[in-house]
Amino acid sequence: MNLDKLRAATRAQMPDKRWKHTLGVVDAAIGLAARYGGHPAKAELAALLHDYSKAWATDRMETIIRERSLPPELLVYDKELWHAHVGAWAVASEHGIEDEEVLDAIRYHTSGREGMTLLDKIVCLADYIEPGRDFPGVDDIRMLAESSLEEALVAAFGSTIEVLVKRGKRIFPLTVAARNDLILQMKQA
Amino acid sequence: MNLDKLRAATRAQMPDKRWKHTLGVVDAAIGLAARYGGHPAKAELAALLHDYSKAWATDRMETIIRERSLPPELLVYDKELWHAHVGAWAVASEHGIEDEEVLDAIRYHTSGREGMTLLDKIVCLADYIEPGRDFPGVDDIRMLAESSLEEALVAAFGSTIEVLVKRGKRIFPLTVAARNDLILQMKQA
Repeated sequence: MNLDKLRAATRAQMPDKRWKHTLGVVDAAIGLAARYGGHPAKAELAALLHDYSKAWATDRMETIIRERSLPPELLVYDKELWHAHVGAWAVASEHGIEDEEVLDAIRYHTSGREGMTLLDKIVCLADYIEPGRDFPGVDDIRMLAESSLEEALVAAFGSTIEVLVKRGKRIFPLTVAARNDLILQMKQA
Repeated sequence: MNLDKLRAATRAQMPDKRWKHTLGVVDAAIGLAARYGGHPAKAELAALLHDYSKAWATDRMETIIRERSLPPELLVYDKELWHAHVGAWAVASEHGIEDEEVLDAIRYHTSGREGMTLLDKIVCLADYIEPGRDFPGVDDIRMLAESSLEEALVAAFGSTIEVLVKRGKRIFPLTVAARNDLILQMKQA
């Protein structure tokens, strides 16, 4: 696996704006890994690849979800969630990425999940707080990210859930499970 | 089953304020049943009994959940949810209520559930909008209740979820499932 080649291949999947976001997530993930004892190379790799399929056509993603037996419940929920699982499948099949920790961090970077690994947390939070992000509350989440991955993620998932409630949209159950689990972890810590 | 006796027995389980709330829910449930073609006697009965165990001691509820094999995941979540399942068990065992539709409406009046019945919806919504209720957004929910049970419940569950997010508390997955399912029903209607 050659990182320069992967970088070029990833760059080729997306428009400029998404690539700029990707570079922001890479930097943020490396920073969080340094702060919280994460594996820097894995954080960089997962962050680089996290949006690999984000700009792919909906039809293409739907076909992959169906034909490659990715979780079928994805199709019932918002398309925003599809690219994470499709992306993990794509980098595994197109580039031979085999590290399940890295693939999981890509798979769950949008939804989160119960029992998030340190790498899951780093990539997911980096995606929320990279410098290009601008949504109500993002500065609070950035501040929390300096002292607790878990507190920052609870706030981040909370902001996603609030947006979905305000828009009358369904909430992906895994995001609620992820947030509930983090709150429990914080209580028990 | 004698309704007057049940009324007296229910009255005896709770302080004045909770009894006043119960009578408000009875009225609201009868009104919603009339508007939406629900069974008036079942709506009255389920509403009368919905908070039967609300004022019971936490220890007593916990013992019943454990010894009567009520859903064990209740114990992991907020105590606010316990009285609904404990109440359904109590009115069945103490007063011989056997109508599963009524018992379910009691069981799920706080959390909601996927595939809510008409009676579930009526009792759950009546509990949100009875005249004694006063929380931000309640008047919007009351207004929605005049035209759609589902829209009103989506707004009601949304307001509960927002409060839990703001307080940093966990969200009961069944409430998210209930809200998601109602949104899907509305789309397909």
